[in-house]
Amino acid sequence: MLTRHFIKAVVTMALEEDLKYGDVTTEAIVSPQATGVGCIYAREKGVIAGLPLAECAFRELDDNLECTRLVEEGAHVEAGQPLMRVCGRLRALLSAERTALNFLQRLSGIATMTAAWVKELEGYPARLADTRKTTPGLRVLEKYAVRVGGGVNHRFSLGSGILIKDNHISAAGGIAAAVSAVRQRASFIWRIEVEVTTLEELEEALAAGAELILLDNMDTPTIRKAVEITAGRALLEASGNIGFERLREIAATGVDYISCGALTHSYRALDIHMSLENEADT
Amino acid sequence: MLTRHFIKAVVTMALEEDLKYGDVTTEAIVSPQATGVGCIYAREKGVIAGLPLAECAFRELDDNLECTRLVEEGAHVEAGQPLMRVCGRLRALLSAERTALNFLQRLSGIATMTAAWVKELEGYPARLADTRKTTPGLRVLEKYAVRVGGGVNHRFSLGSGILIKDNHISAAGGIAAAVSAVRQRASFIWRIEVEVTTLEELEEALAAGAELILLDNMDTPTIRKAVEITAGRALLEASGNIGFERLREIAATGVDYISCGALTHSYRALDIHMSLENEADT
Amino acid sequence: MLTRHFIKAVVTMALEEDLKYGDVTTEAIVSPQATGVGCIYAREKGVIAGLPLAECAFRELDDNLECTRLVEEGAHVEAGQPLMRVCGRLRALLSAERTALNFLQRLSGIATMTAAWVKELEGYPARLADTRKTTPGLRVLEKYAVRVGGGVNHRFSLGSGILIKDNHISAAGGIAAAVSAVRQRASFIWRIEVEVTTLEELEEALAAGAELILLDNMDTPTIRKAVEITAGRALLEASGNIGFERLREIAATGVDYISCGALTHSYRALDIHMSLENEADT
Amino acid sequence: MLTRHFIKAVVTMALEEDLKYGDVTTEAIVSPQATGVGCIYAREKGVIAGLPLAECAFRELDDNLECTRLVEEGAHVEAGQPLMRVCGRLRALLSAERTALNFLQRLSGIATMTAAWVKELEGYPARLADTRKTTPGLRVLEKYAVRVGGGVNHRFSLGSGILIKDNHISAAGGIAAAVSAVRQRASFIWRIEVEVTTLEELEEALAAGAELILLDNMDTPTIRKAVEITAGRALLEASGNIGFERLREIAATGVDYISCGALTHSYRALDIHMSLENEADT
Amino acid sequence: MLTRHFIKAVVTMALEEDLKYGDVTTEAIVSPQATGVGCIYAREKGVIAGLPLAECAFRELDDNLECTRLVEEGAHVEAGQPLMRVCGRLRALLSAERTALNFLQRLSGIATMTAAWVKELEGYPARLADTRKTTPGLRVLEKYAVRVGGGVNHRFSLGSGILIKDNHISAAGGIAAAVSAVRQRASFIWRIEVEVTTLEELEEALAAGAELILLDNMDTPTIRKAVEITAGRALLEASGNIGFERLREIAATGVDYISCGALTHSYRALDIHMSLENEADT
Amino acid sequence: MLTRHFIKAVVTMALEEDLKYGDVTTEAIVSPQATGVGCIYAREKGVIAGLPLAECAFRELDDNLECTRLVEEGAHVEAGQPLMRVCGRLRALLSAERTALNFLQRLSGIATMTAAWVKELEGYPARLADTRKTTPGLRVLEKYAVRVGGGVNHRFSLGSGILIKDNHISAAGGIAAAVSAVRQRASFIWRIEVEVTTLEELEEALAAGAELILLDNMDTPTIRKAVEITAGRALLEASGNIGFERLREIAATGVDYISCGALTHSYRALDIHMSLENEADT
Repeated sequence: MLTRHFIKAVVTMALEEDLKYGDVTTEAIVSPQATGVGCIYAREKGVIAGLPLAECAFRELDDNLECTRLVEEGAHVEAGQPLMRVCGRLRALLSAERTALNFLQRLSGIATMTAAWVKELEGYPARLADTRKTTPGLRVLEKYAVRVGGGVNHRFSLGSGILIKDNHISAAGGIAAAVSAVRQRASFIWRIEVEVTTLEELEEALAAGAELILLDNMDTPTIRKAVEITAGRALLEASGNIGFERLREIAATGVDYISCGALTHSYRALDIHMSLENEADT
Repeated sequence: MLTRHFIKAVVTMALEEDLKYGDVTTEAIVSPQATGVGCIYAREKGVIAGLPLAECAFRELDDNLECTRLVEEGAHVEAGQPLMRVCGRLRALLSAERTALNFLQRLSGIATMTAAWVKELEGYPARLADTRKTTPGLRVLEKYAVRVGGGVNHRFSLGSGILIKDNHISAAGGIAAAVSAVRQRASFIWRIEVEVTTLEELEEALAAGAELILLDNMDTPTIRKAVEITAGRALLEASGNIGFERLREIAATGVDYISCGALTHSYRALDIHMSLENEADT
Repeated sequence: MLTRHFIKAVVTMALEEDLKYGDVTTEAIVSPQATGVGCIYAREKGVIAGLPLAECAFRELDDNLECTRLVEEGAHVEAGQPLMRVCGRLRALLSAERTALNFLQRLSGIATMTAAWVKELEGYPARLADTRKTTPGLRVLEKYAVRVGGGVNHRFSLGSGILIKDNHISAAGGIAAAVSAVRQRASFIWRIEVEVTTLEELEEALAAGAELILLDNMDTPTIRKAVEITAGRALLEASGNIGFERLREIAATGVDYISCGALTHSYRALDIHMSLENEADT
Repeated sequence: MLTRHFIKAVVTMALEEDLKYGDVTTEAIVSPQATGVGCIYAREKGVIAGLPLAECAFRELDDNLECTRLVEEGAHVEAGQPLMRVCGRLRALLSAERTALNFLQRLSGIATMTAAWVKELEGYPARLADTRKTTPGLRVLEKYAVRVGGGVNHRFSLGSGILIKDNHISAAGGIAAAVSAVRQRASFIWRIEVEVTTLEELEEALAAGAELILLDNMDTPTIRKAVEITAGRALLEASGNIGFERLREIAATGVDYISCGALTHSYRALDIHMSLENEADT
Repeated sequence: MLTRHFIKAVVTMALEEDLKYGDVTTEAIVSPQATGVGCIYAREKGVIAGLPLAECAFRELDDNLECTRLVEEGAHVEAGQPLMRVCGRLRALLSAERTALNFLQRLSGIATMTAAWVKELEGYPARLADTRKTTPGLRVLEKYAVRVGGGVNHRFSLGSGILIKDNHISAAGGIAAAVSAVRQRASFIWRIEVEVTTLEELEEALAAGAELILLDNMDTPTIRKAVEITAGRALLEASGNIGFERLREIAATGVDYISCGALTHSYRALDIHMSLENEADT
Repeated sequence: MLTRHFIKAVVTMALEEDLKYGDVTTEAIVSPQATGVGCIYAREKGVIAGLPLAECAFRELDDNLECTRLVEEGAHVEAGQPLMRVCGRLRALLSAERTALNFLQRLSGIATMTAAWVKELEGYPARLADTRKTTPGLRVLEKYAVRVGGGVNHRFSLGSGILIKDNHISAAGGIAAAVSAVRQRASFIWRIEVEVTTLEELEEALAAGAELILLDNMDTPTIRKAVEITAGRALLEASGNIGFERLREIAATGVDYISCGALTHSYRALDIHMSLENEADT
């Protein structure tokens, strides 16, 4: 789902960060001809994302390295399960290991958290969405991991979709004026989304023809009321400090989307490690 | 503590990620001449890191923007405390807001977590150290945030220091051979660090002249024993799955350093937001 | 409307292309201290776009250069009208001239063509839109020039909006399946657009809930019929080999958008030149 | 004629522009395993340039894609003629299509226009030349397309050749002084070219030893007179607002070169498209 | 003579190489507020080149730094002479020092060597020229230093001029064919240069109309003979293993240019250092 | 010993410098289909470094080129000895030749000089070390060549190790304070090195616990005295204007390291050339 040249670009950047001046320990000890076999394992239960990046990291350092995926991208794995086996130059295995794991642990962490939240929403129509609260430089990857975990993406950037916020509204002099300006000047391929904090603003947004409305920081009864008022005239997205514990309660109101910044800014890396196999084992 | 051109490069990369195709909502609504005043607040208690990056993000979009820091980098702040005030083109404020906060929230999250762990070590000589388990592309920033929080840095990259791990040892055919190869070929400006998992390996490493020894995944009694055996002949670093709850117990053994990957791979972003001030307020 | 750092990046790239090895003629002849005044004129009637890029080109080579815009970005100018006056190092004026004009001529060419087509649509609700048939590397600039000329933008990239084409439809096994897959996996902030070539496909797209429908290469009577069938249930965009001469005829059918690749792939550069003023004139 | 790494760099840049955030439609609908066969056709008669770039665009997204050129670079093709066949991952075909065509259509447009102008000069010694009025970022490609069309290149950049213009002359205090300064300081591997607007200046340039003289914006009788005066002592290049209709008239004067900015700033893209073949057809 | 943005790009690259992970010693010891005054001195006699690069290195790390040049670029200085004084943040002075000196020492080394060789040629018409045997990444700078030292530049790149060598001649099937192919296909703004190793080849090159002829590895009597044969019909460049001791002897033959790779591949850095002034001194 | 992606990045940069606008001579004369065989020879005795870079330069221009190394990296070769044979597209051979040689000549020059100095130290424990006085952009390569020649590396950058110099000492207010600040704030994986100029400072540094001490610009008797005083309590590095002629004398004092900037700033390129073989020869 990620294009080949994107993967290569981001992995190259990461290798450059770690190998700018080489790998002095490995170069001093390991012969360029030595080969080895490494196996990457999950140390805890989770959803795996990032295998193409890990593979690319090893290949960048050894053209002829063989890489076998033992699970598919997006697989739900158990603690101790092997994920990928790499066979090639020992130097490449050792020098790329950390970079490969740094991608794999983070993206699997996001996918695992997303999958848990998505599971919590089972039985409700509401979909779980991400935000732009992503790590600088890794947005495309983090949003990809959200998709792997079963979530859906909100905007990729300020130039990839419309979201009219409170400051835009006050700059325009009201919701109607803001929507009208956007309809006039921004691309028509995007739905017009308006952020509202009260039911009065919701009514204004509906009257202005907003097709998507973000209910910002509302309590559950107000969200429920908003769903009733809207009555299908626009899609509704609940957002703002929504923790795992409130998910089902909010989903029960009938909103279409629940979006959450924590998926990409406060996830925990999944514990994944690589170990080299003894020759006897291979 | 970060050089000016480094800050600019990383901030530009982040702005490019969010503004590759512009900010379509803001451009449609806000006049290029409109100005505004924004204030960045902490929503929770913590240690602040990343103010120079936030400032740079705003300035990149408005040369003449005025930026006043209300706290110093590294300040311990309370919930609700204002951090920085920016006054300039409204378009710049709105388009740079998310990028500025994405840096500030993450780095403050690391600094806050580090400071809490460092506080836990009070009264012991042990220092808290980071690892190379950092976010690809942000290692320099994340290690900087660890320093802001009172921690100390381990290696910046595979080419900036020596760490002989189990796979190096088996490739070399033993600890003595590995240390000897490194002493022969790698730069003499680095201490030679060896990772050991047993007390036997510790003895070997000491015999080989290792100046720094990483005690990997040992239980507390074994660490205590290692300290006794070493008796000051090398610096000792405890590492591997060390949670907050074990910190004091391990520090009490007398190790010199405790290193922890979670500081940079599983931190929680600090909750920080920006609000625009009404003209009446300014 | 273009962010400052984007302008700088693209102008720097262009200067690098022309000045990779310096400006050998100017360096041999013109003293580093010599100053001059240049004035940029339109040689023909048109709509001006690109002044910020021209200005940036000169400033990159002389920090202290003074630049005065004599018309606003988007101005309709007459043949012979002065556009911008630059006063600074003579070397900077001569070495940046071609780069400045290369941007200004192309973007003004697009804005001029767009404005003429938009004028032709006066009295009809239909808006003129661009496509992704842009010059590699200059898409953001060319789409900006379309906006300056009064047009509206379609997608900025394959990742900034949805357009289901014939090949997607056949891969999915029908319009309904394609729309459903997109609704399930792509971001909800975009309208779902489907390209259709017959009225049967139009009906299918409407039934599937498409919010935007591209009528590809239809003759005018069929477009008119499509408008009747749709009856406001979706926005309609006419596209495919639409020349200036068919604009009003198609607009009269009541479609919402008419999109045209020629705006960005077959425009004619506006004739604009710079002349240095004699000292007596300044 | 273009080096492999140059092609890769410019194609990668273009793919990045279109695929920065992926291809959301294709990713939602088309399976990563699906394959297909695409064929690129000319919709109108012309000269083809850019096949290596188109091929590179597809290959960047699918390593194993097979690409068969059905015509050679520089071929004169008829409307409807197939140009290239690509067989590989369907996702790669769909996501690279527009980028491939954006290069192919533009470069073929330039080659086609150039070839038509070159044909008009048949029977005369005069060669058709380009200028530096190229699209920022694409100069090397556009000048390549001029060569494919049978034209010859003028300077690639301000540091790749000498051209003394009116402003240089006035800065130096005359043609003789300008030529002398250039002879002293610039590389001796370049011919010294001087731009003149009158026959008096022509005489001065000849006296100063110019080896190449650009006759700027002269009417045909003056150009003819210039050829007589020069009598082979220097090469002559006619330039400045020369349209197709004046080509033979100017060539008849005996000038050596006719240069024209429109070849690269006001060409029309050649109409080229790709269609996917049904399985039954393949 | 170097453009501002070129200087900035190359200096930024060099700073990035040295400061990728910061300046750990300086950051640990020197307060961000501390200021200082540094003075750069020549430790030996020579010709200075590179002051703008040194200045840029310091300014990149401190916007407000004051920099005073005590000699002009190209100055002949004595041992002990002060060259530049910088006053600003102490951190900037210490962190940029090595980068500034690395440029200054190398470029001054080239300028000094060039000036000595040029002086040796005094009284003869022959000019000293460089080659493409430059340091990867620094060609523009090294050729600039040659000009500062009084030399003249040969080609900047394979795409900035013509040089037909033996392998081209054998590929073309003879000198006449090679010249003809180049005249037909390469830009007319460049002189056609042919490399010859015998007087027979010289005659062929003259007959083919070569305007510049490189006499490769000839002994002095043969060069003298070549000058006689040529009799002004082409410019002559002597090249190939020409050491300082043969310079006057070769110049006496009457050749127009003597080119030498050692100027850029085997120069010795000029000894230049920076010292910080005591406060009492400032 | 250099990672694959590093080699590719630096070679690509160098090719871009030489081939930005193509290779106009070769393109005009040599057919794209023509093939050839080139052999690279040493013209003088020396130690070879840079073969992987040379190989990469050729391969970048011809994917299918065959390259056979006739000596190993680090080999001591005689004048006239063949080093590498390349067989592929003639265009690739001619266009990459200079870039390949520019790397090979410089790195072999450094390796040759280093090897000669290392040989001079035979019989003594002292190791030869480099400095940060490297060519901007090529530090990693130049330090690699030092290793190939048998030397050992000092710091790769200001962020890869600690060196407390005189200015740091005066900023800190003394050696003890400087060492203490560094011990507190900089990474513990580096030895603390202090630069001293007198025996008093040496005593202070030892007292402060410095593990590595740079003896700056001391005469031989003072160095000998320093070794006695230190008595193994720290490693000692002699530095500052140490020429070949003083090497053995200094080594005899018993210092551990002798570092020398000339290895990377004033080496002479090794004379290496490529010649194409006649078909009859292949």
